[in-house]
Amino acid sequence: MSIIINEVFAEKAKLLKRPLLKKKVHPRRFAEIKKNKAAFQGYQVIEKEDISFPVKINSRDKILLDFGDHFVGYLSFSLDHYPELKITDTPIRFKFTFGEFPYEIMTPPEEYKGGLGSGWLQNEERSYVFLPCDGALERRYAFRYLLIERTDSASFPVKISDIVCTAVSAVDTDDVPQISTGDERLDRIYNMSLKTLKECEQDVFEDGPKRDRRLWIGDLRLQALTDYCTFKNTELIKRCIYLFAAYRGEHKMVAPCIFPDSPPCVDEWTFCDYSLFFISCLYDYIKFTEDLSLAEELYETALTQALTVYESIDKTCGSTVLNPFIDWCPSLDKSVAFQGVFIYTMRQLKFISERLGRPTDKIEGFIDTVKNTLLSFCDEDKGLFVTAKGQISWHSQIWAVLSGILTKEENTVILKKITCTDTEFTMRTTYMRHFYIEALYNNSMKKEALDFIKSYWGQIIDAGFDCCPEVFNPDNEFESPYHAPEINSACHAWSCTPAYWIPELLK
Amino acid sequence: MSIIINEVFAEKAKLLKRPLLKKKVHPRRFAEIKKNKAAFQGYQVIEKEDISFPVKINSRDKILLDFGDHFVGYLSFSLDHYPELKITDTPIRFKFTFGEFPYEIMTPPEEYKGGLGSGWLQNEERSYVFLPCDGALERRYAFRYLLIERTDSASFPVKISDIVCTAVSAVDTDDVPQISTGDERLDRIYNMSLKTLKECEQDVFEDGPKRDRRLWIGDLRLQALTDYCTFKNTELIKRCIYLFAAYRGEHKMVAPCIFPDSPPCVDEWTFCDYSLFFISCLYDYIKFTEDLSLAEELYETALTQALTVYESIDKTCGSTVLNPFIDWCPSLDKSVAFQGVFIYTMRQLKFISERLGRPTDKIEGFIDTVKNTLLSFCDEDKGLFVTAKGQISWHSQIWAVLSGILTKEENTVILKKITCTDTEFTMRTTYMRHFYIEALYNNSMKKEALDFIKSYWGQIIDAGFDCCPEVFNPDNEFESPYHAPEINSACHAWSCTPAYWIPELLK
Repeated sequence: MSIIINEVFAEKAKLLKRPLLKKKVHPRRFAEIKKNKAAFQGYQVIEKEDISFPVKINSRDKILLDFGDHFVGYLSFSLDHYPELKITDTPIRFKFTFGEFPYEIMTPPEEYKGGLGSGWLQNEERSYVFLPCDGALERRYAFRYLLIERTDSASFPVKISDIVCTAVSAVDTDDVPQISTGDERLDRIYNMSLKTLKECEQDVFEDGPKRDRRLWIGDLRLQALTDYCTFKNTELIKRCIYLFAAYRGEHKMVAPCIFPDSPPCVDEWTFCDYSLFFISCLYDYIKFTEDLSLAEELYETALTQALTVYESIDKTCGSTVLNPFIDWCPSLDKSVAFQGVFIYTMRQLKFISERLGRPTDKIEGFIDTVKNTLLSFCDEDKGLFVTAKGQISWHSQIWAVLSGILTKEENTVILKKITCTDTEFTMRTTYMRHFYIEALYNNSMKKEALDFIKSYWGQIIDAGFDCCPEVFNPDNEFESPYHAPEINSACHAWSCTPAYWIPELLK
Repeated sequence: MSIIINEVFAEKAKLLKRPLLKKKVHPRRFAEIKKNKAAFQGYQVIEKEDISFPVKINSRDKILLDFGDHFVGYLSFSLDHYPELKITDTPIRFKFTFGEFPYEIMTPPEEYKGGLGSGWLQNEERSYVFLPCDGALERRYAFRYLLIERTDSASFPVKISDIVCTAVSAVDTDDVPQISTGDERLDRIYNMSLKTLKECEQDVFEDGPKRDRRLWIGDLRLQALTDYCTFKNTELIKRCIYLFAAYRGEHKMVAPCIFPDSPPCVDEWTFCDYSLFFISCLYDYIKFTEDLSLAEELYETALTQALTVYESIDKTCGSTVLNPFIDWCPSLDKSVAFQGVFIYTMRQLKFISERLGRPTDKIEGFIDTVKNTLLSFCDEDKGLFVTAKGQISWHSQIWAVLSGILTKEENTVILKKITCTDTEFTMRTTYMRHFYIEALYNNSMKKEALDFIKSYWGQIIDAGFDCCPEVFNPDNEFESPYHAPEINSACHAWSCTPAYWIPELLK
């Protein structure tokens, strides 16, 4: 795996790292999780009495703590004996299972068969030889529920004097003015989305604080968009853009993701649409900050993405060997959607170039060439874009619309038509749904966009989530790209854009 | 549970706490444990190649590290990826199982059914989200073998750059002159015993560094005896004597054990022979240091033990309600042995009193009274002591001999006779064997004492132990007072006195 490091940008990213905000949070109440077929994923949380410390725990006891909301942080606790009963003459042992949602708590880690490494499962076991003692887990967890099991066999009770989560984030939702749309459901969706962004906003914009805890550029762009209008943490956005410019893969391509901790490193493959979104990040940065200096500094990096991707395109069919991501839709023929992304980002690059007084003729040439190829996939009879493999996907329509090569009227027809087209190639990720909303918004379909948000994110609230999840398919509660719903992230950045869209759509 | 604290003594004990010596130790080689009926407890260690770091470990790999000797300390390690192969995009998880002996490594913790709390089992599991990283386990372990299992399911290898045990002890065997008895087996027994004492010598004299990690006065007395002649760590002996004087149970009785960590506390019951050994500790202290000040300061404490225990004795049958320990011998009628202990310690108290210029008449009265009772259990026909329940035990004979109420000739006859007496009430602990050796030594049976040491501790060496164990029954390799041999301590202070006896017996 080759990695090309620009030390200047790396240093700038490093200097922009700020201490996180910390808040001490106590568990709010005891809870119980019961099987209930009517509940999301078959589990219902029953709230029990409020917690007041100390809490007595005997050998083999299990207690489920509900922190009352989703938190990202570090657990610490104080343990003691009951000297009036019996002193502790044996080490004690606790198993901690953290869960963002009930299914995660209830699924035994031994049964995990998922495609992602089981190291993501949020549990650990610790022993403590002497009491009283203060304990702490080094690993950061993302959770609302915490199951504590006392797994040692000693006969004495242990006194839990306190349990605290030191919740961390770069930002605080209290710093963002409260929303009041007049529609309670929209307000709740906005707040859930804002909370999601906050939870993911750490040393970098993480995709999800439970998993994968890294900086993906696809997520970053959506997070930044939302952040400009809410937390306004522009320094962190800048830091993340520098990170992508600093650590690049083969051919100086912007990596799809960066592992920010330890010496930063990047993954060994490329998503060319994600590389192109580096341009979108600079575009948004100018739009929201009116500051040209970052784009000036990173212009060459942006241009490299355009040139490299353009060169990779087969001009007759519009496909690329550089592996676009687009969506998690199995067997999707991505070439049409990819061309849409290419033109979409080239228009943004043209805008940046103009603002910086750079030549735009080459970029315009790119747009014209790919536009012609893309248009060739527009099936006049069907009134929709059809790929070389004959697929009619939501992805092709949405990105063709976003590419801006058709008129508003044509776009509106396409966007309406796809909703009543029978196709297996539907939007799978909430990330992809963002671009659908953007397509509706760009084409004066604000009502449809708002209705869509209320319907989809509303169902997320009904399912019991505290944040916007990575995966949510109303038709399959157990959908998981990893074949293990318990490892799905229940707080995922790419689902947070309602906090951007709701105010924008109500303007 | 009532605890009476003398703050002056407690403060003195605290001030005598010294920093421990630390040594960094690396694992020496890889090893494998194989089933072998001929080996001790059915497991044989096969030594493999020497370890040189880094060590590569894949998911589901198990590696067994042999540190080459027994150590007490803290594990730390450095982990990294192989960026040329694949970076780590998932947390990794390791299970660590520490063992003093192979059976401990090979017995699954899930199957533990022992009488002691399972928290003593030496294993833990940890996950690490980002690499490279340095890891460390907070808990102190006692071990020679370390099994590392990578339990996560991620597909990349992990580089273990280093593994270190920071071994701790109050003393260093290098500071004790090497022994050379001319008998290699005796030399080895001496060294193993010295090593055992060193491993147990921490912030206090612990009974065993794996378990129970606390200060028992029965063990302390034997440890101190050995230490005076080897490490000469008199400050630590003094500290421990102060601890027993500082934290006492009901009726100001010296507790059988003190939990030295956290705020020190004591267990809720008493072993009256153990309380009396407080006198032995002071007696030995004077004998070896010629310093009377400690005994002067703690004389009242010593006297209280004598008075309280004497009062508890039923003068017609010599039994006490104060529960003597004597040995781990089920159904043992302890009254005769207890009377032996009482007279033995009263003679020591008389010696102390004389040295301090205190009156001795009361103590002499105690001795005379109990001597008469004890003598009444001497069965002239059998030539042995027989308890009220008709038991002929080793314990009764040994303690009757040690009480010094008979002549050397009578003692010699008894000590020879018991070896050819068929009785189920034999010595069970190595602790009890110490007093047998003392009885032989006091009665000019040095050769028998040396032969006994060579035979019993020699078999311990043959079984593969690195230190002297808590439990060793050559006729039952799986003997465990806790019904779980894996939880037995393989390095236990009360077995360390050959390092005291061998030089003494060869004088």
